[in-house]
Amino acid sequence: MALAHKQLDFESVPVRVSDKAAIAFSGQDKVPILKDGDHMVFDSWKIADYLESAYPDRPSLFGCAAGHGLARFVNAVVDRQMIPKLAPLLMRDVLDIVDDADAAHLRNGIEKAFRKTLEDLASQRDSGIVEFRRMLDPVRATLRTQPFLSGAQAAYGDYILFSLFQWARIVSAVQVLEPDDAIAAWRERMLDLFDGFARREQSRLEAVEAAS
Amino acid sequence: MALAHKQLDFESVPVRVSDKAAIAFSGQDKVPILKDGDHMVFDSWKIADYLESAYPDRPSLFGCAAGHGLARFVNAVVDRQMIPKLAPLLMRDVLDIVDDADAAHLRNGIEKAFRKTLEDLASQRDSGIVEFRRMLDPVRATLRTQPFLSGAQAAYGDYILFSLFQWARIVSAVQVLEPDDAIAAWRERMLDLFDGFARREQSRLEAVEAAS
Repeated sequence: MALAHKQLDFESVPVRVSDKAAIAFSGQDKVPILKDGDHMVFDSWKIADYLESAYPDRPSLFGCAAGHGLARFVNAVVDRQMIPKLAPLLMRDVLDIVDDADAAHLRNGIEKAFRKTLEDLASQRDSGIVEFRRMLDPVRATLRTQPFLSGAQAAYGDYILFSLFQWARIVSAVQVLEPDDAIAAWRERMLDLFDGFARREQSRLEAVEAAS
Repeated sequence: MALAHKQLDFESVPVRVSDKAAIAFSGQDKVPILKDGDHMVFDSWKIADYLESAYPDRPSLFGCAAGHGLARFVNAVVDRQMIPKLAPLLMRDVLDIVDDADAAHLRNGIEKAFRKTLEDLASQRDSGIVEFRRMLDPVRATLRTQPFLSGAQAAYGDYILFSLFQWARIVSAVQVLEPDDAIAAWRERMLDLFDGFARREQSRLEAVEAAS
């Protein structure tokens, strides 16, 4: 989304989460990795910072210093509160769409971190999703007064939060948001951006419906 | 803080929370109220918006459209999650520093909202403050990487959050933050702003120490 916002052409190379050899060239073991000519950057936030400074003439991801500062707070809320709440609930579903090596890798990582089986975590899904929705209350209140978290136009703060919903949309058919939620309407607007860039990635619900 | 940020001279008129007659001139019953010549604005957020548009040549409270949008999210987080968590825990202390009419008004309002006595609410203070500190985790992470929520300089997003700490500081001697918390260091920076503008208001701890 940050690359699309910056109107930059790019090639996207998916890698298996268990395939550390595929990203060994980067000298570290996490995605996303941005390779821009000879320059390499890891970590979504650092990539956004890099794009902003390397391409100052393209549409800004942050708008200004205060926009940058507060986007970092949004980043921390999503990373430290929202992802840890939602991701474990949906992780069991990921196993159905990845190969055996990735499934074992993911199961091992998550079960170690939470000291629960993925099945136990998924069994708390209904109550967990209600808690997740409650956690989103300030997002909901904000989106009742303006179309995007960043105001009238989407910017990096929106992409940070959207990435969680896009992940959820792709890996699980579970209804994370109720249809009449103001956040669901925002998610549709995010899916519409850049000529439906994010919508082109098939959702799990679409995949399930296509298969049945 | 917003007025000081805008470098505007102003006169501040405190009113008792139970004294609705004192603000009847405004045609509504809540503070803060800004009276600027013939113009009247209520609600902190609307006051900030008004100041920003009425005094565009003064230092900006938001920086840009994205800064404004994300500040509204910070506003919602503070209003809807942080204040409801912290305020009930400290409300019992407020009774010691207000007159009888205000004490009765506050007790009645809070006890109705929470269906608990102020004493019951205060009895959960220790565990409640631990939960409040945990809720602040994304703020803490942000302030480990930059001096203010809004980046290198304080702006309205900082003032929103600071208002809760300033209130706590004035009404209660309870230690809301641990001394080595990155947020405590930020609070000191906020107290330093505008030649110690906020620090000039005596804290409850200072008042208790002066009396003993």
